Amino acid sequence: MDRRFDALLVIPDDPRADLYRAMRHAAIGGGKRLRPLLTFATARLFGVDRGCVARAATAIEAIHVYSLIHDDLPAMDDDDMRRGKPTVHRVYDEATAILAGDCLHALAFEVMAHEKTHADPFVRAELVVCLAQAAGPAGMGGGQMMDLKAEDARFDLATVTRMQHMKTGALIACAVEAGAILGRLPPDQRTPLRGYARDIGLAFQIADDILDEEGDEALAGKALGKDAAAGKETFLSLMGIDRAREQARMLVDQAIHHLQSYGAEADLLRDIARYVMERDR
Amino acid sequence: MDRRFDALLVIPDDPRADLYRAMRHAAIGGGKRLRPLLTFATARLFGVDRGCVARAATAIEAIHVYSLIHDDLPAMDDDDMRRGKPTVHRVYDEATAILAGDCLHALAFEVMAHEKTHADPFVRAELVVCLAQAAGPAGMGGGQMMDLKAEDARFDLATVTRMQHMKTGALIACAVEAGAILGRLPPDQRTPLRGYARDIGLAFQIADDILDEEGDEALAGKALGKDAAAGKETFLSLMGIDRAREQARMLVDQAIHHLQSYGAEADLLRDIARYVMERDR
Repeated sequence: MDRRFDALLVIPDDPRADLYRAMRHAAIGGGKRLRPLLTFATARLFGVDRGCVARAATAIEAIHVYSLIHDDLPAMDDDDMRRGKPTVHRVYDEATAILAGDCLHALAFEVMAHEKTHADPFVRAELVVCLAQAAGPAGMGGGQMMDLKAEDARFDLATVTRMQHMKTGALIACAVEAGAILGRLPPDQRTPLRGYARDIGLAFQIADDILDEEGDEALAGKALGKDAAAGKETFLSLMGIDRAREQARMLVDQAIHHLQSYGAEADLLRDIARYVMERDR
Repeated sequence: MDRRFDALLVIPDDPRADLYRAMRHAAIGGGKRLRPLLTFATARLFGVDRGCVARAATAIEAIHVYSLIHDDLPAMDDDDMRRGKPTVHRVYDEATAILAGDCLHALAFEVMAHEKTHADPFVRAELVVCLAQAAGPAGMGGGQMMDLKAEDARFDLATVTRMQHMKTGALIACAVEAGAILGRLPPDQRTPLRGYARDIGLAFQIADDILDEEGDEALAGKALGKDAAAGKETFLSLMGIDRAREQARMLVDQAIHHLQSYGAEADLLRDIARYVMERDR
């Protein structure tokens, strides 16, 4: 991913240099790269060309990085640290951070729709729709809006679950779906992979809530404990830590169970499901 | 456009309601709708189905509206009024305005890539690439970044021209190009239409600079004179008003000249070229 973003974001010798520096600051060096890994691991089931996968994965990660830049803004979550570095608006300024996010957002779709990503334009168009839905008001954007309202609203478990399916689940699901689209798996055969993605998305978020409570800020590379301090309901506050851990383990088992029709070629997806729960950052 | 956005942005009965209200506030009611009109007028040359054109035009206008929401933010141009109404962050808040822009950005690509926009996925993928390039760091996003640097940098005429080609010209060019893509005009036959778009884009911006100096704030529906107050170089400050007006007229004539191989079916494009210069808002 670092090499891909390095090639995509060559700093121009003109007044836009800081815009590119800001995009590079956020996109290069750090991050778990979970979404690109999911696209690789899913596309591997179908023997997709690695160059195609890398482009689609770059587009998806660009959307993820853009969302982190905007979520960290003072008007949003107001975070100073991300991936162990100062956030974009702290290194540059708010205007540059907003524009860097916007530009990564647009670049993601340019990369995805470009003919180099797949020879068949039908595949490219399907990838774009998948990514746009994951990023928009029914996905990440809508989930972040719900999160902003969570301080006042005191959500119940069903609403927190719905919010997290949108906020983090949608793009994780898109990363898996993109692998299936590249593999030309017909939509009616994607049900197990969609179940897998849905389960690990939720397990990922429960693990995030646990790390937010018990994790190490140095390892996480960002401030922790903010949701609890803001009085937001989380899986942890609603279920308690023991039930939350048990629920996450159950989701991981269920995710792996969805892959039963796949052989050893799905072992990477199985490993990712376990990692999602066991990670320390 | 109002009816299209009304159907696209149905307010959900959940915590995302304000997000949709904010998008509707910016997208519905007002605006010259120049970009959709250009797509319609260009597609008319090739007898494209009106439903297809309407969807592509909605996607392009959604990108325009998103860019206005973000440009108006306190960290950017800090504007209180737009299209005769308070700006989105004044009616709602900054976080909602950032998210409303982000969600319109994503929705634009979802609308463009959707199979309803064109039966041929090649056309849809080409439209997405065209729109993404116009929105990204080589287009609108890059132009806005240059504009932010213009206060300190004292640009010369070549740099101001380049900035405006990116900031406003790129999306205007995309609106014309989209009509040609929908009309399946091969790229090597688009040179006259591209010349037309480039000329009216620049004429539009010169007219904007003149209106910024001499226009009526009530008609414009926004604050005027801000560039001059901020010490930014504009076409007006660099050329003087007489030469600027003459230059814009020349560009309009040149734009119309590019259309000489087209007959009466291009009269709407010719009228738009004249309007770009003569408009009072």
